Amino acid sequence: MSSSPSAALVAPSFEGDFSPGEAFSLEAGGVLPSPTLRYAIYGKPNAAADNVIFVAHALSGSARVADWWPWLFSDGGLLQVRDHCVIGINMLGSCYGSTGPASIDPVTGRPYGPNFPLVSIRDVVTLQARLLDKLKIHRLKLVMGASIGGMQALEMAIQFPERVERVISIGAAPLRAMGLGLNHLQRRMIQLDPAWKDGYYAPDEPPREGLALARALAVCTYKSAELFEHRFARKPDRSGEDPWASAHERGQGLSGQRFDVAGYLDYQGERFVERFDANAYLAITRTMDTWDPARGYASAEAAFGRIQAEVMLMGISSDWLFPPDEIAALALRMEKAGVRCEHRELISSHGHDAFLAEPDELARLLHPFLE
Amino acid sequence: MSSSPSAALVAPSFEGDFSPGEAFSLEAGGVLPSPTLRYAIYGKPNAAADNVIFVAHALSGSARVADWWPWLFSDGGLLQVRDHCVIGINMLGSCYGSTGPASIDPVTGRPYGPNFPLVSIRDVVTLQARLLDKLKIHRLKLVMGASIGGMQALEMAIQFPERVERVISIGAAPLRAMGLGLNHLQRRMIQLDPAWKDGYYAPDEPPREGLALARALAVCTYKSAELFEHRFARKPDRSGEDPWASAHERGQGLSGQRFDVAGYLDYQGERFVERFDANAYLAITRTMDTWDPARGYASAEAAFGRIQAEVMLMGISSDWLFPPDEIAALALRMEKAGVRCEHRELISSHGHDAFLAEPDELARLLHPFLE
Repeated sequence: MSSSPSAALVAPSFEGDFSPGEAFSLEAGGVLPSPTLRYAIYGKPNAAADNVIFVAHALSGSARVADWWPWLFSDGGLLQVRDHCVIGINMLGSCYGSTGPASIDPVTGRPYGPNFPLVSIRDVVTLQARLLDKLKIHRLKLVMGASIGGMQALEMAIQFPERVERVISIGAAPLRAMGLGLNHLQRRMIQLDPAWKDGYYAPDEPPREGLALARALAVCTYKSAELFEHRFARKPDRSGEDPWASAHERGQGLSGQRFDVAGYLDYQGERFVERFDANAYLAITRTMDTWDPARGYASAEAAFGRIQAEVMLMGISSDWLFPPDEIAALALRMEKAGVRCEHRELISSHGHDAFLAEPDELARLLHPFLE
Repeated sequence: MSSSPSAALVAPSFEGDFSPGEAFSLEAGGVLPSPTLRYAIYGKPNAAADNVIFVAHALSGSARVADWWPWLFSDGGLLQVRDHCVIGINMLGSCYGSTGPASIDPVTGRPYGPNFPLVSIRDVVTLQARLLDKLKIHRLKLVMGASIGGMQALEMAIQFPERVERVISIGAAPLRAMGLGLNHLQRRMIQLDPAWKDGYYAPDEPPREGLALARALAVCTYKSAELFEHRFARKPDRSGEDPWASAHERGQGLSGQRFDVAGYLDYQGERFVERFDANAYLAITRTMDTWDPARGYASAEAAFGRIQAEVMLMGISSDWLFPPDEIAALALRMEKAGVRCEHRELISSHGHDAFLAEPDELARLLHPFLE
């Protein structure tokens, strides 16, 4: 495998936009008159087109899989482009090329903004399947994803059972009440920002502080208390701030008084604002919240019973957004519905983000499933 | 015990304000020129004055202990006023009668507002001891509290070892990184509200939404995922909202689209705004954040070694703000420092709030300690 490209060098062999050429009706009742999906392809389908892997991205990801999951493409990684064709597709509702709240609504000639309709995970995979049709990819060797990407992987196996040979879904299950509550509070933070303007903010005047704050809370849910304790404990902010400073000594509000963890969270929030749209954040978190694979079926078993793929569900031991016991319970329900379902648990202190932070351990657990 | 008053009927036998009559210098460097403490007394000291129990309140509590911990006073409760004299003292920085951000700064003639200086837990108990001197209460049979009240109980036993016979501290330890981070985000939410006005809001125009949002996040930290799942699961808001509603169908922002847990959190936030001041919330959460009993001592052991009281530390199994393993570790450190320290764990799904929600189980664990 020494000739495989290193992580830093993998670029898509093709990037493009797909439009079905007609209006797309959404599960919740809305319509997208002319949706577009941005996609990226790494490597090439072989003659039999049986080497194609679709990687669905998580909340803030993009079609460029190698940008955010580089180690999958590295020497010995799961997705050797010498052997496989990897496709990434940006989700509806995102701000990385596919139709989302920042796109122009053909009906009004202005950005959708807060009027972007609710898109379900089922909508997302239904349009993805249309793109695969166009690409003449009728069968996927593997669909994999983590978090909302794992939701897409499972939903595709339910909706298009004949297309999917294998599924790997990491840290994904219908959100539980605590996760639904924390996502709701994040949306409210964005809307509390005076720059929010009911969602009609100008692109260069977004609700920065609200979005940064929402992201900072999300980061808390993506990490674990154990990791934070190890990294930050009760240390003061590393740039020299003093948590014991009185407000009146500084007159700077909260800055100047932070613990290290606070400085970290603020920084993560500020970075996120550079690369994400607030309305897209609202849209995708609602897409995540509303995912319920049983919706429209007599039961979850009836939905899962459609799956023909071999499935691997992976929980993460320290994940408190998608707790590992919830993933284990989901695996059990799938087995009862007749799905060939393996369950693994990634032992990590990194929380939900372990799917990005623990490449070696993840590879060790995933490789046997594909061989 | 059948003649004991029922919970609903217990009123203080005395309520009053205490001022030391001179300026009070704070640990972090500020000064309160003329601080006042609001206190409430239930029952009476006996002739030997050896039946006095001080109950320190949690973040949003008050001196009126029976208002927020009524079952302690009920038939068979821990604090029978027939036998005991119970004293409650409102914390410095609060908005329930003691000097806090809403008080008039004698230097400017206007409310302290955001200029209220940082008050430490040590400051809080030092002024409390002055009040006890004034009341000629030289020895406390018991100091008890939960959360920031438990911090006060332990700090009083460290600072005034000769005054304290027993300590019960429930769900309290120096905050860990996750808790520090979440408190920081709560303060930022308040400051994001346009009504915040850098802390110089008028009393009748407070930053309602920011404070409500901060409280809603705090409520998530006070409860547990298990409790939320049991109560709310993925149910839609009970007043009939539809999480599948598209924004454009309603044009109401987030309302009309909530899951039940979101409606609950919003409601908890709105209720809190009626009874708490935003600047006080900022002040007290910083008092909580900065508590470090070892500060100023060679080590935590040196601080704990001062304690003469018998101590009971109680963790709560589902508490993720003050995790039970942290309480257990604190108990171990105290034992190593020579403290007679018992450790108990309250098994409950109620999270940190179990000290309010599980009266029977708490009583069962606490009674033997006092007998």
